[in-house]
Amino acid sequence: MATPKIKYTHEVPPRSENIVFQQHHVSRAKRGQVMGQRGGFRGCTVWFTGLSGAGKTTVSMQLEEYLCSKGIPAYSLDGDNIRHGLNKDLGFSPGDREENIRRIGEVAKLFADAGVVCLVSFISPYRKDRESARRVHEKNQLPFVEVFVDTPLIVCEDRDVKGLYKKARKGLIKGFTGIDSPYEAPENPEVVVKTTEMTIKECMMEVVQNLQEKDIIPASATEKVKELFVQPENLAKAKAEAASLPVLNITKLDLQWVQVLSEGWATPLSGFMREREFLQCQHFGTLLDHGVTNQSIPIVLPVSNEDKERLAETGAFALSYEGKIYAIVRSPEFYEHRKEERCARQWGTSNKGHPYISMVQESGDWLCGGDLDVLERVVWGDGLDNYRLTPNELRAKFRGMNADAVFAFQLRNPVHNGHALLMMDTRKKLIERGFKNPVLLLHPLGGWTKSDDVPLGTRMKQHSAVLEEGVLDPKSTVVAIFPSPMMYAGPTEVQWHAKARMSTGANFYIVGRDPAGMPHPEEKRDLYNHSHGRNVLTMAPGLTQLEIVPFRVAAYNKKKGQMDFYDPENHDDFDFISGTRMRRTAREGGSLPDGFMAPKAWKILQEYYQSLPKQS
Amino acid sequence: MATPKIKYTHEVPPRSENIVFQQHHVSRAKRGQVMGQRGGFRGCTVWFTGLSGAGKTTVSMQLEEYLCSKGIPAYSLDGDNIRHGLNKDLGFSPGDREENIRRIGEVAKLFADAGVVCLVSFISPYRKDRESARRVHEKNQLPFVEVFVDTPLIVCEDRDVKGLYKKARKGLIKGFTGIDSPYEAPENPEVVVKTTEMTIKECMMEVVQNLQEKDIIPASATEKVKELFVQPENLAKAKAEAASLPVLNITKLDLQWVQVLSEGWATPLSGFMREREFLQCQHFGTLLDHGVTNQSIPIVLPVSNEDKERLAETGAFALSYEGKIYAIVRSPEFYEHRKEERCARQWGTSNKGHPYISMVQESGDWLCGGDLDVLERVVWGDGLDNYRLTPNELRAKFRGMNADAVFAFQLRNPVHNGHALLMMDTRKKLIERGFKNPVLLLHPLGGWTKSDDVPLGTRMKQHSAVLEEGVLDPKSTVVAIFPSPMMYAGPTEVQWHAKARMSTGANFYIVGRDPAGMPHPEEKRDLYNHSHGRNVLTMAPGLTQLEIVPFRVAAYNKKKGQMDFYDPENHDDFDFISGTRMRRTAREGGSLPDGFMAPKAWKILQEYYQSLPKQS
Repeated sequence: MATPKIKYTHEVPPRSENIVFQQHHVSRAKRGQVMGQRGGFRGCTVWFTGLSGAGKTTVSMQLEEYLCSKGIPAYSLDGDNIRHGLNKDLGFSPGDREENIRRIGEVAKLFADAGVVCLVSFISPYRKDRESARRVHEKNQLPFVEVFVDTPLIVCEDRDVKGLYKKARKGLIKGFTGIDSPYEAPENPEVVVKTTEMTIKECMMEVVQNLQEKDIIPASATEKVKELFVQPENLAKAKAEAASLPVLNITKLDLQWVQVLSEGWATPLSGFMREREFLQCQHFGTLLDHGVTNQSIPIVLPVSNEDKERLAETGAFALSYEGKIYAIVRSPEFYEHRKEERCARQWGTSNKGHPYISMVQESGDWLCGGDLDVLERVVWGDGLDNYRLTPNELRAKFRGMNADAVFAFQLRNPVHNGHALLMMDTRKKLIERGFKNPVLLLHPLGGWTKSDDVPLGTRMKQHSAVLEEGVLDPKSTVVAIFPSPMMYAGPTEVQWHAKARMSTGANFYIVGRDPAGMPHPEEKRDLYNHSHGRNVLTMAPGLTQLEIVPFRVAAYNKKKGQMDFYDPENHDDFDFISGTRMRRTAREGGSLPDGFMAPKAWKILQEYYQSLPKQS
Repeated sequence: MATPKIKYTHEVPPRSENIVFQQHHVSRAKRGQVMGQRGGFRGCTVWFTGLSGAGKTTVSMQLEEYLCSKGIPAYSLDGDNIRHGLNKDLGFSPGDREENIRRIGEVAKLFADAGVVCLVSFISPYRKDRESARRVHEKNQLPFVEVFVDTPLIVCEDRDVKGLYKKARKGLIKGFTGIDSPYEAPENPEVVVKTTEMTIKECMMEVVQNLQEKDIIPASATEKVKELFVQPENLAKAKAEAASLPVLNITKLDLQWVQVLSEGWATPLSGFMREREFLQCQHFGTLLDHGVTNQSIPIVLPVSNEDKERLAETGAFALSYEGKIYAIVRSPEFYEHRKEERCARQWGTSNKGHPYISMVQESGDWLCGGDLDVLERVVWGDGLDNYRLTPNELRAKFRGMNADAVFAFQLRNPVHNGHALLMMDTRKKLIERGFKNPVLLLHPLGGWTKSDDVPLGTRMKQHSAVLEEGVLDPKSTVVAIFPSPMMYAGPTEVQWHAKARMSTGANFYIVGRDPAGMPHPEEKRDLYNHSHGRNVLTMAPGLTQLEIVPFRVAAYNKKKGQMDFYDPENHDDFDFISGTRMRRTAREGGSLPDGFMAPKAWKILQEYYQSLPKQS
């Protein structure tokens, strides 16, 4: 038999060797890890098709920006980087157009294979060319998402950003899609977006949604807040089930954490932490199983030895507070509540003189993790529930206000004009940076606080007075209550405060000089170093999306007769009004310099302090 | 003037608009972040060129695997994924070959632009084609690294893996490079590798070296150990300088840490931690500034208030122990030694009954970070210095033994046959998995230990006896001393023990049931949960390269008369010999069941325990 004369490619080994070769390639799972997603491999191609001017590139650029900001590698192929490079040898004959799309499909496949989300934005008018690209992907088990940017010709021609339609109508461009060359709309695209009916961002989110359903984007990386409420259609069934389950009575503090979890502030937690999550939180300040999420403080449910014995073998039990059932805990996992170790790692001290640590010490000897099905929203009936907006409600509010930046200010104290100065200054700086409508989220903490803090009701009245008197601009401010308890855990807790606000869509966070600090329970010093909170916050994994706005010290400028940013050059002009002096003056019915605090707001504080029993 | 008839590309906006477009693209720095490297954007193309059979693909595949294992996104373009896909329309005419390489250059550029290290492996015989690819990259400010795989034709033809040379010689393939078509060797390639003189791994490391010099690979991601020794040529000058500097007297414990740092066990630390590194370590168990490196325990230098006052304004000072100057600290940074907080976060307790915590409490009130120039190797003159091998020396040793896997066993106690069983079993399992020559690193800890632990000298004698008696195989075992002090910090410390061993090239780590545990100083319980060390280790960021081999409990099987893996089904067959019983028996000169420990090794222990003063 004669040796067959094969047309041989020098670079490619014969088929049998190919297979061996392929095994040497880095596995997809491994590549997925490298690309920063522990959940595995997520390369794919998102293929935008539509008329010239339909908005393909606009949507895909926004998607690229979005994915990159979430830590997902993405890359755009468009006219800009393809027609000038790889395909610069191609013209616009039918054959060249087909070859153009063929090559783009092949390159997209390579990117998808490399673990990148490849965004392709070309008119790609012919169905068969797009189907070829799809087949190339399918042959390699790579997801292919066709997005039809469905903008009517009349709209595209009216937009005519590049003046191409005008030229085509004049006959200066031949074979222009939609004018003298057909556009074959997709028959079964994965996503259809209508730029005439939706904003660019909404269009983009349609694609994001699809990628998320395919598990290409991890839940933690989308802006989606994970609420733990039972769907309305399942509520009756869930309530009936809950009524049949063993019950665990929880404390008010526990219920505040149920509220935090249920509303999605601690996304992606699906309930009280299991031991695995607890260990990640304690040792790395993060959750590691769905991408890297910042989670510096444990959110845990302590149970007594007796309750643990009673509930250990149940597959689910109900949580009850003051006789009312709020939630079901599913697949509970009980693990040791190592209180000293937990406190030491969370607070950097296990001193029982610390008010939250003392509560931990008195709580149950076991922790119970498990998935939470929350039957209804937690409300407190204190006249302030309408301020308790969930992350999703806040998002909707910001959208309604057309906010293009949201800066959050956490507080658990009355607002004085120094705070106001800082907030207004931040807004000014954001406007200077090009934002048109930055909105302030004034977000007082509403959960448990220590007994000598000003209570929430008084603080809310005080904040309202500040807004009424115009010290802050009500039109660009949202006042809402953050339902979390306060832990007084310094640099560890400030991360939680920042992370929780990210779920509202806030992208700027003002951080104080001494966030969440308090005096050491025994020693004459502050519990935390004043700069650690800010420093840790700027380095914290999982918070890089958030821009940290450092606190600037404000004090009363005696010359100017108003609050002013402290200038050490003119130290003597400044009067630092301490909390102690403010409290004493308020109690004595005295007044502080004009301009320290809006008068109505000051009056509210005076009334509060005067109502307190005299200090011994 | 007539409107000019332009040949218009429908997809590409006119030039002026291009620029605007470009601005919308995600910035490289941002993409660099996404790709997991905080240091910024690192996309580039590594272009392997050389004859068929030179080893291009072999080296590039190994490099791809290496980069991916270090968390650096990399992707290979080779005949396999290009000739069958993008370039399947091309044949082997001169024009098609040129077009083949042109397209590959353009696609590589896109990958590099996307932040990926693109590895190209094609003969690419013509200088001008490679230069075109280089220009395409340079025009876009993307690094292009040409690697000449310089294997002589005679060797390639002799290898002839694919039988192509034979066919070419017979005339069955026309225009085969090196036979009847020229190969133009690069004139100024960035890297030349000679597969005839170097191993594949050495070839690969040449390329890695080049990428590292270009800062494309962060230092922490290379296997390079960062030693802090002064280069020999600068030593005289450094010693003279040190003699002129103010001196800080350090403790033996401090000197042990100097040794750890100087030998590179804590790569990439360049000296005692500065506050920024300390905070990263305390809050996230990692260093975050050069990629993510695991660093769970702080390596810090405490100084007294007095010394701090004296040295605060110096730009450098010398470290002295027992009158001998060991190192220079440069650009020192003093920060508060917050002892309670430090201990709480590191140990999960600040109980002063813990022996290391007690030393922390007694140490200086300040910590001093700074870059370390170490003048010479730290030796102890105890007859054991020859066991104190640096990470680089261990690597050389493993290379010399042709190890293809290294599994490390940390210990601070005598070896009994249960340990030996585990080690031999691990070796067997690795061989079953396809490793040809797995080497055991038996790595007793040699720094400070608490006073009731068996001292290092006795342990080393005991380990030697175990090897001499053949319980472990001396031919596949390296015994060396790990110079670190012991901190008894449980799950926090076990990460340090694992991370430090990674610097020796170890890729498997055997982790015990209760790593680094000890009894609680006050309560009747162990300080740590027995499973936390192992669980934390498997989740720890920066340790994913290391495979964790879980400890299996071994006990004396009375029926078999030897140590055996515990089988709960046959519980009564097993005799668990506690540490207390072992110590008591040794002290009393008694014997334990045959097969518990090699007789010579047991004798050494007996002698040691009998030499101790009687317990009251």
